[in-house]
Amino acid sequence: MNKTTQPYKGARDFYPEDKRFQNWMFSVLRKTVESYGYEEYDAPVLEPTELYTLKGSEEIVSEQTYTFTDRGGRSVTMRTEMTPSVSRMVAGKRQELPYPLRWYSIPALWRYERPQRGRLREFWQLNVDMFGVSSLEAEIEMLKLSDDILKAYGAKREMYSIRINSRIFMDYVLRDYVGLDEVEAGTIRRLIDRMHKMDYVAFGVSIESAMNPSQREDGSPEKLLKVLAARTIDELPEDLQTHEKTVQLKQLLQELSNRGVTNAVFDPTLMRGFDYYTDVVFEVFDENPENNRSMFGGGRYDGLVGLFGAEPVPTIGFGMGDATLENFLRDHELVPALPNQTHIYIAVVGGDEVIAKAQKIITTFRQEDVNVAVDITNRKIGKQIETAVKKGIRYVIVIGENELDTDQLTLRDIQSSSEEAHSIERIISLVLAK
Amino acid sequence: MNKTTQPYKGARDFYPEDKRFQNWMFSVLRKTVESYGYEEYDAPVLEPTELYTLKGSEEIVSEQTYTFTDRGGRSVTMRTEMTPSVSRMVAGKRQELPYPLRWYSIPALWRYERPQRGRLREFWQLNVDMFGVSSLEAEIEMLKLSDDILKAYGAKREMYSIRINSRIFMDYVLRDYVGLDEVEAGTIRRLIDRMHKMDYVAFGVSIESAMNPSQREDGSPEKLLKVLAARTIDELPEDLQTHEKTVQLKQLLQELSNRGVTNAVFDPTLMRGFDYYTDVVFEVFDENPENNRSMFGGGRYDGLVGLFGAEPVPTIGFGMGDATLENFLRDHELVPALPNQTHIYIAVVGGDEVIAKAQKIITTFRQEDVNVAVDITNRKIGKQIETAVKKGIRYVIVIGENELDTDQLTLRDIQSSSEEAHSIERIISLVLAK
Repeated sequence: MNKTTQPYKGARDFYPEDKRFQNWMFSVLRKTVESYGYEEYDAPVLEPTELYTLKGSEEIVSEQTYTFTDRGGRSVTMRTEMTPSVSRMVAGKRQELPYPLRWYSIPALWRYERPQRGRLREFWQLNVDMFGVSSLEAEIEMLKLSDDILKAYGAKREMYSIRINSRIFMDYVLRDYVGLDEVEAGTIRRLIDRMHKMDYVAFGVSIESAMNPSQREDGSPEKLLKVLAARTIDELPEDLQTHEKTVQLKQLLQELSNRGVTNAVFDPTLMRGFDYYTDVVFEVFDENPENNRSMFGGGRYDGLVGLFGAEPVPTIGFGMGDATLENFLRDHELVPALPNQTHIYIAVVGGDEVIAKAQKIITTFRQEDVNVAVDITNRKIGKQIETAVKKGIRYVIVIGENELDTDQLTLRDIQSSSEEAHSIERIISLVLAK
Repeated sequence: MNKTTQPYKGARDFYPEDKRFQNWMFSVLRKTVESYGYEEYDAPVLEPTELYTLKGSEEIVSEQTYTFTDRGGRSVTMRTEMTPSVSRMVAGKRQELPYPLRWYSIPALWRYERPQRGRLREFWQLNVDMFGVSSLEAEIEMLKLSDDILKAYGAKREMYSIRINSRIFMDYVLRDYVGLDEVEAGTIRRLIDRMHKMDYVAFGVSIESAMNPSQREDGSPEKLLKVLAARTIDELPEDLQTHEKTVQLKQLLQELSNRGVTNAVFDPTLMRGFDYYTDVVFEVFDENPENNRSMFGGGRYDGLVGLFGAEPVPTIGFGMGDATLENFLRDHELVPALPNQTHIYIAVVGGDEVIAKAQKIITTFRQEDVNVAVDITNRKIGKQIETAVKKGIRYVIVIGENELDTDQLTLRDIQSSSEEAHSIERIISLVLAK
């Protein structure tokens, strides 16, 4: 029986052309977040399972995790998100770290579910977090940075929008303004989180049935629906416009606009799934009408570091998955041609003897940062050049006995189907200049 | 109960300064292998367990693996090495790939064992493989590349040696020259693999007891020990010096020497553990007398792709673990100072208002590839500068109301404890030039 050549279901092999794409996509992320002073960190792909159980209790971890017992009897889980790991790391050195911390990572994450477009079992996620700043300037930076990432790929402002809400504000709306108790509020929060996947009428009915008769008589459902219908802060009921958090959100939107981010909007329907958010939450939406969806998001979560017994630290961050980002870039045609990293393919006439003698030339190229692959197969020259073309390498130089003694080499440009003789120095500057 | 802040046993957290080191170490690897035209690939950290069972049989996978059953009832294993995965990938596209392939990867690998210095449960390993070349030129390239990697870190030739042997040659020695059957040869191979961890006398005794009385009478143990004692090919018994493989190894050593690799030697005691090697094997040794040990190695394994039912393809490769490499670099003091990637820390006098107004300056820096972190804490200026120092950021600029209107900014160089006023353009070229 032969072994299968398929990777594990829901996980991908990255052949060189796939990896080249991923490396390009990640390099833009790295460059942009590093321009804001964020530093890279990492943590193991396996974590003790207790990291994912709430507050150290024995609650069952999600059905979507890869959880198993190691050979020493410990329960371990493959990370499904990075936030618990980074909180653990900050808590572990809470006293000695130089705040504010600006940290990022692009970990591989795992979740067990049925694979589908944009949702795989193994995926990557940029995680950007700032620890140690409670003022709104942290929110402004996170959102401006999110915006700069998309701009770095060449995205235009009309291709996406940034939607903002506040958990504290929504708690106020549900508890104080509408008058729900915590159980009712929890039900309603989950309904709002799913509302864009529901029929509007069905949503209204669900809201009504989540409330009790006296609340329905008081017009509470309508009160709530009116809040949720607001598309700007000015469209909110007047008595909500003076709430501390509304004022802050307005200030946030204003300052973002001042800094050029003019496509950020208030969205009272934005809840975000995770329990740990404590105040401002945001999501970036793809505005492609055929694929209008949330691409990534984040928010403020001031409570996680404290779960480890360390002094709490104000925290804000976001996570951006590779699949939705890739879909966005491809749908909007933002992926450039990605050439092979190998600059020159050297085809050889004359076999191993010529290869041995050509070492001086080859070494000169490599020392000058020119990446050179040598064809050492002794095949016919046509086959060798064909290999370079298949690999997507732009330049070819054919070396035989004659080329060993001249100071000129013929550089073939596959892209323009032209060739010209140059000195080695000239070739180096030509191929590195692109 | 608070959660623990410790990572899973035997796995490491990478705080920014740790990650900075790893990024530097890996960047030297990438740069060197890419200069030879190797292209990066990747595969999932989870593989179907059958990938690690020999020839599709039901043999039990090693006790050192993380193997478990997923929620769908499939047995999966966290990869312990990359060779099975890369062979699987090549077999999967055997017909369409453009040979020769030059592929590399730096995967995280997992093995379950007691953690100790240089052996952790999660580790990284550079894997470099060439598919499609059966001639000795492939061996020459692999060894020259291994050598170039160490040279790229600044290693001197006397710090390490490259030891070479051939599986085919050793099979000939054991079976034909010494006259063992396959079972005896297997026992002896395992003994040789451990000989440098054994007392020399004990080794001799073990060799004798692995042979039968008539072999002992024939002087077979002495014959074998004489072969193993050879430190050069010329020291081998004369009738072994004309064997096809000996001649090839000599040619390999000669050509390496011609290309400047003068510290490669023949070593008949070099076996390497993996079963899949088919001919030339090699290991690179740290020659530090206090820490003389094998750092990394590889060899030719022409049979693996064929296990997947694909047409076999000649293959050669090596794997280099991060822990031994790191130990080598640190022991030989080859690690340079690694500055924070953030070029400038901007300390702010005047709070959010000044931050808002300073955006134009900050954006100019970022657009010119200068990485700038802004202190948005509104703390006293001394505290802000102290943070920059703790983070290892070299330059600080203090911005207050006064700085917003001038075209000169004062650049503080923490490294030289000096400061000077410059235009923004001048600051950009200063900090990027290093």
